[in-house]
Amino acid sequence: MKALVIGAAGMVGRKLVKQLLAAGQVGGTAIESLMLADVIAPEAPEASIPIETAAVDLSDADVAAKLVADRPDLIFHLAAIVSGEAEADFEKGYRINLDGTRHLLEAIRLAGIAQPYRPRLVFTSSIAVFGEPLPPVIGDSHDHTPLTSYGTQKAICELLLADYSRRGFVDGVGIRLPTIAVRPGRPNKAASGFFSGIIREPLAGQEALLPVADTVRHWFASPRAAVGFLLHAAAMDTALLGNQRNLTMPGLAATVGEQIAALERVAGPNAVALIRRQPDATTANIVAGWPQAFEASRAKALGFVGETSFDDIIRIHIEDELGGRIG
Amino acid sequence: MKALVIGAAGMVGRKLVKQLLAAGQVGGTAIESLMLADVIAPEAPEASIPIETAAVDLSDADVAAKLVADRPDLIFHLAAIVSGEAEADFEKGYRINLDGTRHLLEAIRLAGIAQPYRPRLVFTSSIAVFGEPLPPVIGDSHDHTPLTSYGTQKAICELLLADYSRRGFVDGVGIRLPTIAVRPGRPNKAASGFFSGIIREPLAGQEALLPVADTVRHWFASPRAAVGFLLHAAAMDTALLGNQRNLTMPGLAATVGEQIAALERVAGPNAVALIRRQPDATTANIVAGWPQAFEASRAKALGFVGETSFDDIIRIHIEDELGGRIG
Repeated sequence: MKALVIGAAGMVGRKLVKQLLAAGQVGGTAIESLMLADVIAPEAPEASIPIETAAVDLSDADVAAKLVADRPDLIFHLAAIVSGEAEADFEKGYRINLDGTRHLLEAIRLAGIAQPYRPRLVFTSSIAVFGEPLPPVIGDSHDHTPLTSYGTQKAICELLLADYSRRGFVDGVGIRLPTIAVRPGRPNKAASGFFSGIIREPLAGQEALLPVADTVRHWFASPRAAVGFLLHAAAMDTALLGNQRNLTMPGLAATVGEQIAALERVAGPNAVALIRRQPDATTANIVAGWPQAFEASRAKALGFVGETSFDDIIRIHIEDELGGRIG
Repeated sequence: MKALVIGAAGMVGRKLVKQLLAAGQVGGTAIESLMLADVIAPEAPEASIPIETAAVDLSDADVAAKLVADRPDLIFHLAAIVSGEAEADFEKGYRINLDGTRHLLEAIRLAGIAQPYRPRLVFTSSIAVFGEPLPPVIGDSHDHTPLTSYGTQKAICELLLADYSRRGFVDGVGIRLPTIAVRPGRPNKAASGFFSGIIREPLAGQEALLPVADTVRHWFASPRAAVGFLLHAAAMDTALLGNQRNLTMPGLAATVGEQIAALERVAGPNAVALIRRQPDATTANIVAGWPQAFEASRAKALGFVGETSFDDIIRIHIEDELGGRIG
C-alpha cells in the first residue's frame, strides 16, 4: 500500500513515521511507498522503500489534490494549528484546521468521482471538542460544546469525516487524543505544558515549575500510546464503527499529586524535590475548564489500548527519550 | 431596530414576517425597517414601515456582505436546502447550508472589524443533528451524530455560531426546531410528510395515507410555536446562555395513535375514517432512526414554550389555516 502522512514533521508525526518504517506493514499489508507532508519539509528517514517529502500548506486549495494524486491507500492527517495559535489568529485557525481538512476530504471525494477511490483516513481530533459543563467522567455520547476555536474546528472536522464516510467517499476514523505526556523537548508556552514539564525536567536534573494545585485531574497518554492509536485506527475493521466514525481514545486519569507520586516511585525523592510550586491563577483557571476523565468504552471495546498507570508513562519517556537512563 | 429575515419566502419565514409586522417591536424596541431575502423574491406585505426584498443566493460569497451592509440589529437566518435535497445533491447542500451560513457569519465579523457591530442572529437548526443510537428521551447534553448531510451541516453551523458568539463577533442563538405539524399546504414528498398529512387532509375532507405503525413516536411543534421560538430567541437575554448558544426547543412527544385520538376528539370519527393505513417499509425504516422525545430542559427554563397536547396543535391549524372552521 501507499501511505501519506500529513503533519509528518511534528512530534507525533515523526514517531509515527519511524514506527511505520519499523513495522513495514499496516494490518498485514506491506507499505510500498511513503509520502511525508508538512508546512516545513519533513526529514526523510533512511528506508528500504521510496519516501517522498513535500513542504506544503494544506490550506491552499490545490495542495490536497496533489497530495492524493498518487491515490494513497492510507492517509494520516495530523496537521493542525495548535490551540493557542488558533485562538490568537482566528482566520489562520479556520484556514488551516477547518479549510485544510475540508480541502483534503474534497480532494479525496473528487478523485473518487474520476475513478473509484476510498482510502482509509485517520484524523487526529482532540478532547478540546468537549467544553463546560462537563461531568467528572465523560461518556462516549457527551455533547461537543468546545470553548476554543481549535476545539470548534476539530469538532467540525469530526462531523465532516463522519458524513464523508457515511456517503462512501472516504473510510474515516477520527481519534480524540488525550493530552500527550511526557512530551519530549524543550518547555513550551502551552497551558498544558507543566503536565509534562514536572516529569521531564526533574528526570533531566532540572527544576520545573508547577502552577496548579496537586488536586488537578487530567487525562493522559504517552507519545508511544498515541502512535499505537494511529496504527490501530489505520488497520481496524471500520465496519464496526457504523456511522460513528469518531472515538475518544482511552487514557489515564491522574491528578498532579498522582503524577508526582509516580515520579517519586520511578525516579526517587531527589527528582520530586526539583518541582517548585508557583501557583498561577491564569493557568489554574484555564485548566479548571478541562476534561478530567473519560469512559472511552467504545474505543476500548474496539481494541485501542492506553496506559494504566502514570508510572508506565514515565518509564516510556525514559525508554524512548532518555535511552533508558535518568540524567 | 433594523431586522433582516433570510429565508423569508418559506412557510415559517412568511409567518414570522407577519408576526413581526403585527407586533411592530421585538423585546420592546420598535422595528424601523425590514429586509426580506430568499432565493426567490419574498412577497413584501403591506406595512407602515419600509420593507425591502431581495432575491439572493447566500452561497454567493458577496451576497452576505450586501445583506449586512445596512447593519441590521436583528437577523433571522432560516434559509436552507431541506434534508432530502441536501442528501440528493451533496455539493449543493454544503454550498447553501454550510458555506451560506459561514459567509453570513464572516460578513458580520468583517463588518465588525470596520466599525463595532454585533447583531443578534437567530439561526434555525434542527433535531436532525441527532442520530443513532438515541435514548427514548434525549437530554440537553446528548452528542450530535447526524445521519444525513443536512443534519451534519446544521450541526456544523451550530458549532460556528457558538464560536463566533464566544469570540464576540455575533450574538447568536441557535434553535433546534421540532418537526413542524400541522404543515399547511399540499402534501410533499418528505418522509415526515404523513405526520401532518394524517391531520391536514382529513380536516379538509380528504383521504390521507399512513405509512407507519400507530406506535411510532415523534416530536412536534406547531408553526405558531415555531414563530414564537424565533421571536423569543430574538428578544431573550443571551447572557443566560453562556457559551452554549444552541438549544433544543420544547416540543410535544406524540405517537401516531395519540395524533389520531386527538383528531377524533377535535374533529370526530368521520375525520379519522379518512386515514387509510398503507404500510411502507422504506418510510418506516427512515422514521425508526428519528428522535422520539427530548428533555429540552434548558430551553424551557429560558422561557421557550411549546405545545402540551396534540389537540392544541390541531386547533392551531384550524384557527390559523382554516379560518376556524373544519371543511
